[in-house]
Amino acid sequence: MPGKTDHPLERLVFFSDAVFAIAITLLVIEIHPPHLDADGMQPTLEALARLIPNFIGFLVSFAVIGAFWAGHHRAFSLAGRIGPGILVWNLLLLGAIAFMPFVTGFMSSNYGKVGPAACYWSWLLLTALLNLKVNRMATGPAMRAAGVTEAEAAAVPRRSVAVFLAAAAALIISLFAPMFAPFGMATIPLWMLLLKPRAGTPAPAA
Amino acid sequence: MPGKTDHPLERLVFFSDAVFAIAITLLVIEIHPPHLDADGMQPTLEALARLIPNFIGFLVSFAVIGAFWAGHHRAFSLAGRIGPGILVWNLLLLGAIAFMPFVTGFMSSNYGKVGPAACYWSWLLLTALLNLKVNRMATGPAMRAAGVTEAEAAAVPRRSVAVFLAAAAALIISLFAPMFAPFGMATIPLWMLLLKPRAGTPAPAA
Amino acid sequence: MPGKTDHPLERLVFFSDAVFAIAITLLVIEIHPPHLDADGMQPTLEALARLIPNFIGFLVSFAVIGAFWAGHHRAFSLAGRIGPGILVWNLLLLGAIAFMPFVTGFMSSNYGKVGPAACYWSWLLLTALLNLKVNRMATGPAMRAAGVTEAEAAAVPRRSVAVFLAAAAALIISLFAPMFAPFGMATIPLWMLLLKPRAGTPAPAA
Amino acid sequence: MPGKTDHPLERLVFFSDAVFAIAITLLVIEIHPPHLDADGMQPTLEALARLIPNFIGFLVSFAVIGAFWAGHHRAFSLAGRIGPGILVWNLLLLGAIAFMPFVTGFMSSNYGKVGPAACYWSWLLLTALLNLKVNRMATGPAMRAAGVTEAEAAAVPRRSVAVFLAAAAALIISLFAPMFAPFGMATIPLWMLLLKPRAGTPAPAA
Repeated sequence: MPGKTDHPLERLVFFSDAVFAIAITLLVIEIHPPHLDADGMQPTLEALARLIPNFIGFLVSFAVIGAFWAGHHRAFSLAGRIGPGILVWNLLLLGAIAFMPFVTGFMSSNYGKVGPAACYWSWLLLTALLNLKVNRMATGPAMRAAGVTEAEAAAVPRRSVAVFLAAAAALIISLFAPMFAPFGMATIPLWMLLLKPRAGTPAPAA
Repeated sequence: MPGKTDHPLERLVFFSDAVFAIAITLLVIEIHPPHLDADGMQPTLEALARLIPNFIGFLVSFAVIGAFWAGHHRAFSLAGRIGPGILVWNLLLLGAIAFMPFVTGFMSSNYGKVGPAACYWSWLLLTALLNLKVNRMATGPAMRAAGVTEAEAAAVPRRSVAVFLAAAAALIISLFAPMFAPFGMATIPLWMLLLKPRAGTPAPAA
Repeated sequence: MPGKTDHPLERLVFFSDAVFAIAITLLVIEIHPPHLDADGMQPTLEALARLIPNFIGFLVSFAVIGAFWAGHHRAFSLAGRIGPGILVWNLLLLGAIAFMPFVTGFMSSNYGKVGPAACYWSWLLLTALLNLKVNRMATGPAMRAAGVTEAEAAAVPRRSVAVFLAAAAALIISLFAPMFAPFGMATIPLWMLLLKPRAGTPAPAA
Repeated sequence: MPGKTDHPLERLVFFSDAVFAIAITLLVIEIHPPHLDADGMQPTLEALARLIPNFIGFLVSFAVIGAFWAGHHRAFSLAGRIGPGILVWNLLLLGAIAFMPFVTGFMSSNYGKVGPAACYWSWLLLTALLNLKVNRMATGPAMRAAGVTEAEAAAVPRRSVAVFLAAAAALIISLFAPMFAPFGMATIPLWMLLLKPRAGTPAPAA
């Protein structure tokens, strides 16, 4: 693209940031503040306790969208220009992110049920897949900034693979014990460790 | 404008990005997560099936707003400065985009009815017209960046014309078979092909 | 402020843009898509006709917030650095803008009533006052960019005064004929003309 | 990070700005415009009077989020690069900010009750703690821009400590007189004064 230098890439990044930021902030809208009939510690805590499923949904989705944003952030910090197809794939990823408030609300409103939980974690798996695709494109040869090494570029999609595998683990757990599915996401460091290139392996162009 | 260099153009672009991003993310708010009476695959799928009109509305409007954003992105990547009248026309376009969640919800809540569908596709036609106007201004002589050729500048509004014609096709289809109207948008590549300058035609200043 | 150059000013501007963009896009949330009992042109138009007060509210507030944004845009395009107090005054202005969806909804839900209309236009008058203050600060000696002349800087607050006077006109009209109050805003060009420095007057440092 | 220079820091800052801006603008959504049965000054003012708790909640939370944003703004204007751990801590802060509309609504819907008020001010205390941590990191040796002195860097977290102490004061007041808790925030200047390094104290590297 002629004219302005890296403006188009910057704009893609800021548009993505805006969608991430709005989706992450809209999560709170689904939690309706309860009206108390009586004052005091007991009624307040009881009212808040009834919202625990919503708080968990908020927490999990906030962490997940935050993690996707951080990955996007890392991947695009290595990119130097717009590549072919990135606009469409990035839009698909943003669409999946923008839909998260719905699946979050669906899971929270039906807390402990297998169906909505499986629905939530399937959606997350799909999002993780799109995330992997976008991050691979952003750090690939078509978009990578000058001076970024193969090893640096490879570290970002590796993290995306770990997120994808953790989402798959959470989906499997959700089929048997939906309440414990969030712990599947805690396996990210485990996958990171397993995916790490061994010291003996020749690194692809340091 | 004195003082800062291309700051005003940048700000116009980022403000537009923000409105596009918010409108596209607000679409999900209209879809209310259902509460299930029983657990299991069957009730979950039934509850989701009842929301199919809303999912289609989300999908179509997300694609459409995303396409308008991508066009805006392309057009303004060729612009080098603010031109007269662009603030007002761009605001009109943003107003049309910001109103999309309403027409989307109106169509989804009355899925299969001709009236709301025609209303949705008419609104889209109007938006496409404003989009064409804004993109023509951004790539026109008053705003174009130095070094952008006529041919490059002409390609962007041509795409906007294709979107406009596709919206017109969708509107016509909606009057007879409202459910199939989204397929009208799939004619964009066809219009692009028809609008392409033939090889024999002398290009306007390469 | 040391370290980065004009970063703080840029960030103030983008934060403001985000608040303007969100407030302008949230206006649509207050308009709930109606459910039709029957299909056809007649029921569709009847349902939409019942929402006319909401459409007018959307239109007026969109135009008004858009105008304030455009003024902010113009004023800050002449600024070169952050000045003392601008953070607080700008936040007050953004608070007034962020509150617009409420007064808009209040007027639309009670269309034709004097009380809510007067409330809307009073709020607008307050916002116009804050807008005038912020724009005067942004184009004042403490913040103005190098190379901006007195005459250029003076043109921006003059416009803000015109918006303030138009809001006052709308408020006065709203007390007698609330439905016609929006036409008060149409007096902006008139005030601009009256406020224009006469040709004979010595301009304050061309 | 290779490739682009301070792009990653900028993106972190803009993402944060977007979350601050959305949270601050979403506050208005919880205030539902009332429908009047009769026109006139009296019914209008009565309807608005019933919403005073909501207006107070909006005002307090707007001021508080605005103050946190201004602090973030000041701290990051001294930063020159991304530091380790800042992404995660900043996300935690943003999560706390994004949750503010809920605690605001909870307090407003139960105005004058001790439980929800204590809940609100406890949340604020937690947010102030995260804010202090993030601002200390942003102005710490790992992130500070070249040319920023120790004294300049120390002034920002000092302000964050004052906000934290004011939130603690508000929480204590809320346990006895929930309605007067907002005045606890008015003690910020007092803490600022007490925390000010005395003239006689040797400044840590001017």
